Amino acid sequence: MDIQQVSDTLEIQNLGYRFADAANRRDYPAFKALWADAGVWHIGAPINLHFDGREAIGQAIETLLGRWEFFVQLPHAPVITLAGDTATARWTVMEQARTLDRKTGNVNLSFYDDELVRDGGQWRFLKRAYATRYADETPLAGRAW
Amino acid sequence: MDIQQVSDTLEIQNLGYRFADAANRRDYPAFKALWADAGVWHIGAPINLHFDGREAIGQAIETLLGRWEFFVQLPHAPVITLAGDTATARWTVMEQARTLDRKTGNVNLSFYDDELVRDGGQWRFLKRAYATRYADETPLAGRAW
Amino acid sequence: MDIQQVSDTLEIQNLGYRFADAANRRDYPAFKALWADAGVWHIGAPINLHFDGREAIGQAIETLLGRWEFFVQLPHAPVITLAGDTATARWTVMEQARTLDRKTGNVNLSFYDDELVRDGGQWRFLKRAYATRYADETPLAGRAW
Repeated sequence: MDIQQVSDTLEIQNLGYRFADAANRRDYPAFKALWADAGVWHIGAPINLHFDGREAIGQAIETLLGRWEFFVQLPHAPVITLAGDTATARWTVMEQARTLDRKTGNVNLSFYDDELVRDGGQWRFLKRAYATRYADETPLAGRAW
Repeated sequence: MDIQQVSDTLEIQNLGYRFADAANRRDYPAFKALWADAGVWHIGAPINLHFDGREAIGQAIETLLGRWEFFVQLPHAPVITLAGDTATARWTVMEQARTLDRKTGNVNLSFYDDELVRDGGQWRFLKRAYATRYADETPLAGRAW
Repeated sequence: MDIQQVSDTLEIQNLGYRFADAANRRDYPAFKALWADAGVWHIGAPINLHFDGREAIGQAIETLLGRWEFFVQLPHAPVITLAGDTATARWTVMEQARTLDRKTGNVNLSFYDDELVRDGGQWRFLKRAYATRYADETPLAGRAW
C-alpha cells in the first residue's frame, strides 16, 4: 500500500472506532458528525429500522440509546476495500446492553456492511447496514456505573 | 515506521481480520486464499486438530463450520513482529458458537500465534497455532438468524 | 495523514494491543516496558487503585493477575488524538476473569482514557485511567487451560 492507501485505511477504521466510542460514551454530536449529509442507517431484522439523512440519524441515536441503562458496542475485524473517493467496509460487532428497568438484557453478534465517501476531505458513512447474527435477551445480573 | 513497515503491519492485521470475516460469513474461497500453499493450521488442546496445506485447510473449514448453527470469531490485539518477507503475529480471540441441535454452546477465549510469509506480493499464513485459554459449553439461550 | 501521523497512530494502537497481550499471557517484563518512568495507572470505582511510576506498576500487575485463575482483556475501538510528542487515546475493553478458587467470575466492560508520550523514540503510557461501565461477578461455568 502507498501512503494514500495506508492513510485512507486507517481513517476508515477510525470512523468505525469513533462510531462505537461515541455510542458507548453517549457523545451525540460526535456520533452525528460521522455521517454524510445523505447518510443512510439501515438496521435489519429483527429490529427493522431505517433512517435517512444525518439529521434523522442524529435524532435516532438519542432515542435508541435512551432505552438502555448501558449500551456498549465492541467493533472487530474491519475488512476495507478502497476505490478512490469511495470505499466499502465490513465489520463484526458484539453489543451488550440492558434496558432502563434492568429486566431485559441484550447481548448480540452482528455485522455492519458500510459504504464510505470522502466528503470535504473527511471519510464519512454514506450507508451502514446492520444484520443480526445472534441475539440473547436473557436478563443480565451485573451492575452498571 | 517507514511506509514499508506501515503497509506490512496493516496487511498482516488485515489477514487476521479477513480470517475472522470469512469464517463468520462462511466465505470458504476467501478463507482458503489467506493461506500459503504449505500453510499449517494447528489447533491445540482440548480440540487437537492439525491440517497441512491450503487444500486440507480449505476442506477443514467447511467441515468445522458445518457443525455450528452459528459461529463468530472476534479477533483482538494483534502484536506483529516484522522480519523482511516473514513476520510473526499474536492475537487474542473470543469465539461464540452453538451446535446445529442448539444443545451445546461454545464461548471461548483463545490465542493465535502466527507465522506469516510474503508470498507472490501478498502476505499469507504459513502457520496458525491456536491455544484455548478458557472455554464454556453451557447452552446458549439466544436466537440466531 | 502523512507517514509520521500514520506511524504514530499504529504505534499507539500497538501500545494498547501489547498491554492486553502482555497481561493475557502474563509477560510481566513486557507489561512494565510499556510505561514511562513517571507513568500513572489509575483504576476507578468500584476497584479504586492508583499506582505511581513504572516500578510500582510492574509490581502491581503481578499482584493483580495473581488473584485470577485466568484473565483476558479484549481491547477495542482506539480513538487517538496526536499532538506532536504527546497524544491521547480512548479505548473500550471487555475483560473476563475468574478467581483462583473458581468461585467468583468477572466479566466487565470498561473504558481506558490514556495519555501517551514519545519517550526515547518509543511511545509509552504516561497515564492510563480505567473506568468500569458494567461488571458481572456471577460464577463462570467453563474450564481454563
